[in-house]
Amino acid sequence: MSPKITTELLKQLRQVMKNPKYVQEPVQAYIVPSGDAHQSEYIAPCDCRRAFISGFDGSAGTAIVTEQHAAMWTDGRYFLQAAHQMDNNWTLMKMGLKDTPTQEDWLVSVLPEGSKVGVDPFIIPADQWKRMSKALRSAGHDLVPVKENLIDTIWTDCPQRPCKPLIMLDLSYTGVSWRDKIVALRSKMAERKVMWFVVTALDEVAWLFNLRGSDVEYNPVFFAYAVIGMNTIRLFIDGDRMMDPAVREHLQLDSTLEPEFKIQVMPYGSILSELQAVGAGLSPKEKVWLSDKASYALTEAIPKAYRYLTPYTPICIAKAVKNVSETEGMRRAHIKDAVALCELFNWLEKEVPKGTVTEIIAADKAEEFRSQQKDFVELSFATISSTGPNGAIIHYKPVPETNRTLSVNEIYLLDSGAQYKDGTTDVTRTMHFGTPSAYEKECFTYVLKGHIAVSAAIFPNGTKGHLLDSFARSALWDCGLDYLHGTGHGVGSFLNVHEGPCGISYKTFADEPLEAGMIVSDEPGYYEDGSFGIRIENVVLVIPAETKYNFKNRGSLTFEPLTLVPIQTKMIDVNLLTQKECNWVNDYHQKCREVVGAELERQGRHEALQWLIRETEPLVRVQ
Amino acid sequence: MSPKITTELLKQLRQVMKNPKYVQEPVQAYIVPSGDAHQSEYIAPCDCRRAFISGFDGSAGTAIVTEQHAAMWTDGRYFLQAAHQMDNNWTLMKMGLKDTPTQEDWLVSVLPEGSKVGVDPFIIPADQWKRMSKALRSAGHDLVPVKENLIDTIWTDCPQRPCKPLIMLDLSYTGVSWRDKIVALRSKMAERKVMWFVVTALDEVAWLFNLRGSDVEYNPVFFAYAVIGMNTIRLFIDGDRMMDPAVREHLQLDSTLEPEFKIQVMPYGSILSELQAVGAGLSPKEKVWLSDKASYALTEAIPKAYRYLTPYTPICIAKAVKNVSETEGMRRAHIKDAVALCELFNWLEKEVPKGTVTEIIAADKAEEFRSQQKDFVELSFATISSTGPNGAIIHYKPVPETNRTLSVNEIYLLDSGAQYKDGTTDVTRTMHFGTPSAYEKECFTYVLKGHIAVSAAIFPNGTKGHLLDSFARSALWDCGLDYLHGTGHGVGSFLNVHEGPCGISYKTFADEPLEAGMIVSDEPGYYEDGSFGIRIENVVLVIPAETKYNFKNRGSLTFEPLTLVPIQTKMIDVNLLTQKECNWVNDYHQKCREVVGAELERQGRHEALQWLIRETEPLVRVQ
Repeated sequence: MSPKITTELLKQLRQVMKNPKYVQEPVQAYIVPSGDAHQSEYIAPCDCRRAFISGFDGSAGTAIVTEQHAAMWTDGRYFLQAAHQMDNNWTLMKMGLKDTPTQEDWLVSVLPEGSKVGVDPFIIPADQWKRMSKALRSAGHDLVPVKENLIDTIWTDCPQRPCKPLIMLDLSYTGVSWRDKIVALRSKMAERKVMWFVVTALDEVAWLFNLRGSDVEYNPVFFAYAVIGMNTIRLFIDGDRMMDPAVREHLQLDSTLEPEFKIQVMPYGSILSELQAVGAGLSPKEKVWLSDKASYALTEAIPKAYRYLTPYTPICIAKAVKNVSETEGMRRAHIKDAVALCELFNWLEKEVPKGTVTEIIAADKAEEFRSQQKDFVELSFATISSTGPNGAIIHYKPVPETNRTLSVNEIYLLDSGAQYKDGTTDVTRTMHFGTPSAYEKECFTYVLKGHIAVSAAIFPNGTKGHLLDSFARSALWDCGLDYLHGTGHGVGSFLNVHEGPCGISYKTFADEPLEAGMIVSDEPGYYEDGSFGIRIENVVLVIPAETKYNFKNRGSLTFEPLTLVPIQTKMIDVNLLTQKECNWVNDYHQKCREVVGAELERQGRHEALQWLIRETEPLVRVQ
Repeated sequence: MSPKITTELLKQLRQVMKNPKYVQEPVQAYIVPSGDAHQSEYIAPCDCRRAFISGFDGSAGTAIVTEQHAAMWTDGRYFLQAAHQMDNNWTLMKMGLKDTPTQEDWLVSVLPEGSKVGVDPFIIPADQWKRMSKALRSAGHDLVPVKENLIDTIWTDCPQRPCKPLIMLDLSYTGVSWRDKIVALRSKMAERKVMWFVVTALDEVAWLFNLRGSDVEYNPVFFAYAVIGMNTIRLFIDGDRMMDPAVREHLQLDSTLEPEFKIQVMPYGSILSELQAVGAGLSPKEKVWLSDKASYALTEAIPKAYRYLTPYTPICIAKAVKNVSETEGMRRAHIKDAVALCELFNWLEKEVPKGTVTEIIAADKAEEFRSQQKDFVELSFATISSTGPNGAIIHYKPVPETNRTLSVNEIYLLDSGAQYKDGTTDVTRTMHFGTPSAYEKECFTYVLKGHIAVSAAIFPNGTKGHLLDSFARSALWDCGLDYLHGTGHGVGSFLNVHEGPCGISYKTFADEPLEAGMIVSDEPGYYEDGSFGIRIENVVLVIPAETKYNFKNRGSLTFEPLTLVPIQTKMIDVNLLTQKECNWVNDYHQKCREVVGAELERQGRHEALQWLIRETEPLVRVQ
């Protein structure tokens, strides 16, 4: 990896920072955040502006360019990568280290008095704008919105914004029609006494209209906004996608509908002016509901007194609770995914000893097997296929420079998943194709104990996921071990593999309570730098639990694994398990054998079926 | 309990709300918060203004009086009590219920346009002022500080502010001289680049100067403020307490000291004007450090740009980490406390069957035995002595109207503690003096399992206490049970029995990480309304843990119980315990027998010793 040479680009950027064609007054600094206008986690190539200006293409990072300096803030996952990808024009700001200044503090330390700091108001979330603006103002500077994105003005070969065809999901997949979703949303709006709701997150637009797209890799979403009033529906979307008769039919664009269900289709780019018009026409007490992570531009379109901001929107919360059609779809998707992985692991068992399988080949093979399954659309994220020391790099993605050959002497970690039309999968298995050491088995077994502790946990209705995080760590903690990431994230239903508002992590406190129908991952791990990584991940469904008593009639919840892929028993030190844990593993494997076995049989995949049967032999614990 | 008749009082209050002698402009509403000027949890009689105006004397509640209305906000613990104690002039606002308006919303709904809402700026914490003021302003009203407390103007027989003699603690108790504490504080101030630190919490003043008082019941504190500069020390304190030669000696008031250790003693009431003088004399970049819970009056004395506010002060954090002298003192105090409780329980075992012991008698007897111990000062909180259904009232305190007789048919719960000159205790034991039912034993054993899960937990250095809370609940959750309070609170060293900044609770996220030397309680419970309450509470010390591995060299922590009082084995269903839990109980009892046994022996308390030996017989688990 050689760094991107940015001298000329920075020169051009510094020129446009003073060019009255783009800025009302010259700006002394320009901020280039990571995200897109929808605060997406994954972004389209045309939105990779920070990577374009700096060369650093990790998933998190903020660039700030002043007349003299260019600095990049990123976190521990990316220190090495950013240092490799950026040239000497850039200073790397290692977030989380004690001596690293915040962006605000650094700006204050380098800017001349009374400076203007520019940022694209569509890219910066309103809550970040507020914090940054306050800090700068108290030091005598100003944060100013620069309408035209300055990177775009110098990015001559910027790719086009994608505008791919839409996929319609019928009731058998979604369980609820878009009309009924609108009705439910309006009832939430009425409860909170708001008149308008602005849908800014791409997965929320997709979910609301039962549509999917492929504008962003791995995420079946499309670029659009929506503004829902009590009597109007406006969908802001570009291209000729609305010319497709099937889409028109799905959205009933040409039907005679009650006016409150008539969708007005408008250009994607007109959201701001339309929202400003809404803002200007509000009567007292007419509130507009927005996510507090919506862009500064859209938030500002609504006068402050009329804004109703929440961290999680009603769509985000409704989307998280899957209905029966969605959970049945997720089950089907996970069975197909398990079939593909049984094939893969059976293949790896035979091929790895030959010394010809690299991390990339294994990842490609996994994709090949998945793509053979019905309704496969694409992967749900970049496959983490890592062996030996690469397994300790938590967000590893094999590239030719790092590509390692799988062997019978190293642990192999595969974290992968797919989008099927009926569901989204995300599974991690850690395997050894030779003989694991006692220490590797010990560590694996602690991680397994943590996985089981969460998966089998029973907890009251209304419990937030972060309260379960320590269960996943307890066995590791007892031996002085730990892992430095959260334990689980929400998973969409043929939507983003990471979604809010629930999860299992010590890092948050603001997650929404778990309720039956929510789907999260359960993925504790253990990583030893330079030697190996272990992670065991299932996607699990929150279900009601039967308990002996029922305190205050609250009811209890537990998890049901949707992922049905064997956990390699060779890696388990069975004497470290309690009888209860041992039973959990055996019951889980029994279910894998029955459910996935039947599907392997149906698909005529006999060799993989034999592999599954071998791998799901019950553990026996020495009493 | 008959309600207090407040018609006349409210009439008087409404008059002074318009009296130009007290208010610049009439106020249409007046807020009477619970606290004192130091945001203390326990307050002196002269500060019980809310109880005076309303009759309701629970520990939490805010009264608001307008021209037409009088309303009281309190939480679920006090709905019944408040309803009993207040007359028809008052509306009870049940906090936590869905339909109960917030104070702000209620004010907005009842006030005429453009109203002024008054509050004593010394009583309201700055963060609450900010929230309230913002809400009122956005509805066209104003929150205004009323210098003279309006309740005090009508409270003709208001008790005097206490001004009791001080207790000096020498190095054998505190381990660190007040001079060294000042030096350490100044180094924290230098780190954060602040020039002044304002000490507003009473326990922080007491800790800093190695002094104790008895101005507030159960809390060995005295009314005072301090302002620490880089070269000056000002102590604001009233009365002739500074005339005591021992105090003068302790504070070296008459010695020739380096000027930066010379304490200037000033009247308690001069804090505001002195702080305003400090505020007026600040040069740019000279910051003043205050707790964000300091009163609005003191916070406002410092111009906004010069304030440095944190949720926990450096004194709060330093105070929480006990040094060797303090932990040794705490150990001694807990041994003495255990002696008293062995005597009590031995006595109860003999007396309860006679049917003559009431909750109040038992509480008094506990105090009597404690007061026989060396360096006993007072109780550390009002004894919770509760039998049968009273045990389910979590903050119960026996009064003649509710006083119940202990019997061999009911569970008895005793939550009590004392202030000794060498330490503060807080212990809960739940006993049965007859034969507990299988169900009672089952519930008790789940609570015990939770208690052990926390006490024996091993966790990485830097872990916050709230991450351990679920360990205490897991066994209860498995059976559909739970308890509706946190699991633990920080405990002072001959100081407040509740102190920050650490604790073990699902309710908070902002606690400071646990570190070796911190002391917290571990007190899970289970309560069945109308029948019984169970709680098992030890005070535990955070200590380093030995572990097999040491991930990233972080080190691990665990707890050592300081409380050494037997846990009634009669209440344990041993078959519900794992072998590890059974061993924990036996090891704990072995330690109680050895350590407390030796002290009982030394004190010649042979009958109690026999009781201790009986109660610490090892459990045997049927394999």
